[in-house]
Amino acid sequence: MARCRALVRPALVEAVGRLHPWTGEMAAYALGWADPAGTPDPTGSEGKGVRQALALLGAEAVGADGAEAVPGAVAVELVHTFSLLHDDIMDADALRRQRPAVWKEYGTGPAVLAGDALLAQAVAVLAEAPGRHTGAAVRRLCGTLNDLVSGQAEDLRFEDRPWHGPGAVSPDQYRSMAEHKTGALLGCALALGAVLGGAPDRTVTALDRAGRHLGLAFQAVDDVLGIWGDPAVTGKPVHADLRRGKKTYPVLVALAGGGEVAHELVTLLSSGRPVDGEAAELVAALVEEAGGRAATRDEARRHLDAARRVLRETPLEPTAARRLDALFAHLLDRTW
Amino acid sequence: MARCRALVRPALVEAVGRLHPWTGEMAAYALGWADPAGTPDPTGSEGKGVRQALALLGAEAVGADGAEAVPGAVAVELVHTFSLLHDDIMDADALRRQRPAVWKEYGTGPAVLAGDALLAQAVAVLAEAPGRHTGAAVRRLCGTLNDLVSGQAEDLRFEDRPWHGPGAVSPDQYRSMAEHKTGALLGCALALGAVLGGAPDRTVTALDRAGRHLGLAFQAVDDVLGIWGDPAVTGKPVHADLRRGKKTYPVLVALAGGGEVAHELVTLLSSGRPVDGEAAELVAALVEEAGGRAATRDEARRHLDAARRVLRETPLEPTAARRLDALFAHLLDRTW
Repeated sequence: MARCRALVRPALVEAVGRLHPWTGEMAAYALGWADPAGTPDPTGSEGKGVRQALALLGAEAVGADGAEAVPGAVAVELVHTFSLLHDDIMDADALRRQRPAVWKEYGTGPAVLAGDALLAQAVAVLAEAPGRHTGAAVRRLCGTLNDLVSGQAEDLRFEDRPWHGPGAVSPDQYRSMAEHKTGALLGCALALGAVLGGAPDRTVTALDRAGRHLGLAFQAVDDVLGIWGDPAVTGKPVHADLRRGKKTYPVLVALAGGGEVAHELVTLLSSGRPVDGEAAELVAALVEEAGGRAATRDEARRHLDAARRVLRETPLEPTAARRLDALFAHLLDRTW
Repeated sequence: MARCRALVRPALVEAVGRLHPWTGEMAAYALGWADPAGTPDPTGSEGKGVRQALALLGAEAVGADGAEAVPGAVAVELVHTFSLLHDDIMDADALRRQRPAVWKEYGTGPAVLAGDALLAQAVAVLAEAPGRHTGAAVRRLCGTLNDLVSGQAEDLRFEDRPWHGPGAVSPDQYRSMAEHKTGALLGCALALGAVLGGAPDRTVTALDRAGRHLGLAFQAVDDVLGIWGDPAVTGKPVHADLRRGKKTYPVLVALAGGGEVAHELVTLLSSGRPVDGEAAELVAALVEEAGGRAATRDEARRHLDAARRVLRETPLEPTAARRLDALFAHLLDRTW
């Protein structure tokens, strides 16, 4: 990932430099490059750059030079930053990577604008990429943007749905949301690399699918950590997702199983009382007892396996395919 | 404009129909097609569709069929709707076309999301347009999005600047903001029509320039109406822009002239006291006395003349050029 960051960095800096200075300042803060005063920030709050790495490896996996994928890598990083920025507004998340979210630091209006600037610049960078594949790349990015928005819309709508009964969110509906919200952009990163590297449609589609599975695995791990994660590692409070009443896979799958424990869970979750402290302990224990934790770990393993299987079954350049496989494994290699 | 709306409507409906149902519902409300319950709204709160008309006439003016421009027309209408939606959040404008703004009706988070959905769909519609000119059209739209964001950034930043002294906003800086915020999309509408109609670069650039002048004229008229407009006609309270402390052209040009009246104005505007009732009457009178109203009318006329001159001096299909000229005149034909 460090190699990929180094290759993409100049183009990413150039793209941010083309923004209006004020939105550029917010973008640099959001990317972890600078503190709110605009001073370079060496505290390591910069993201890992998973998406840019996937784009570059996507191109190399289809036998192209990783450099071909740089406009795609820049585009997916900018889209990722845009979506974190706007999602934090919608979800009222005040913290991002242990620092105040952009809306908290600069205000909601400016944060809306900075997100817009990043989104527009993402498309611009890709639309201005040289070569024969630009049009296909832009269309693919547009489809992904539609998926991202749909995923966020589904996620926001889940908040108003009951824990139980005909209106409840099913595990399948949750999976569809997570594929849109998390999987689509990871798939797009790989696919853009392949498109810009001149790969045939079949290979592009396969890599997109691998990225989507990776995203679903990633989300399942996040959901486990959101309930049982160690705050010292996750940077979030213990039982964070339970306190916020978030409808996540472990809880939904525990409820969908029915039975006595599920019934007890519904009663607790629908009581209207805050789920924190001992109540959160109890909910977490019941979700685990009902099999929610194990099922989510299985879900993560299943999608990681599926992603790696796609890599094996697709004709790819062996070194890049091996690197991709190692990256997939590494990304899921967290304590969960 | 009615002819253009009829030609564009099916494609616009289709584009909105491709959104997630919830963002589509908000989009239909923002477009004035439906009330918040999703029921078709026949109260005429739909926009006039200036931008879609410019796109179609832009294609016809370069000798192409207006239908060629439909993807461009849809894109600029969606971008316009997106920008109103997000700008209303940033400016805390609670009313839009005599109805609650989307953020007021649905909440800020959902309104951010609906704007994102519209923006993404605008680019998607254009990127999927058939023909050889798609790439150029998408790149032009991206440039315009960057202009729009820059214009909004400049406008928001003006709020924090003093009325007087070295940090004051100059009339030139205001004009640059207005060209980005209002002119760029009108220019883009015409230019996209021309691009999709296969026009040479020189013609595209000329039509873009005409649209930008039109936008500057339009903004100048808006600024006059924002202070001296009849609330029964504008739908806004009397002295609306003064009450909000907005830095508009009439005030800035009055202040830039210096002299005793300008000095009195600075004192009033910088006093920290609310500018309403009699205070607003007085400020309006002083701005007029210092020549701000007349200078803004001149500014509007000058830019309308410049826009029409570009039409005359550019080789265009005569019927469409005549229609464009009439549309330009009609758009500025308000009581000011």
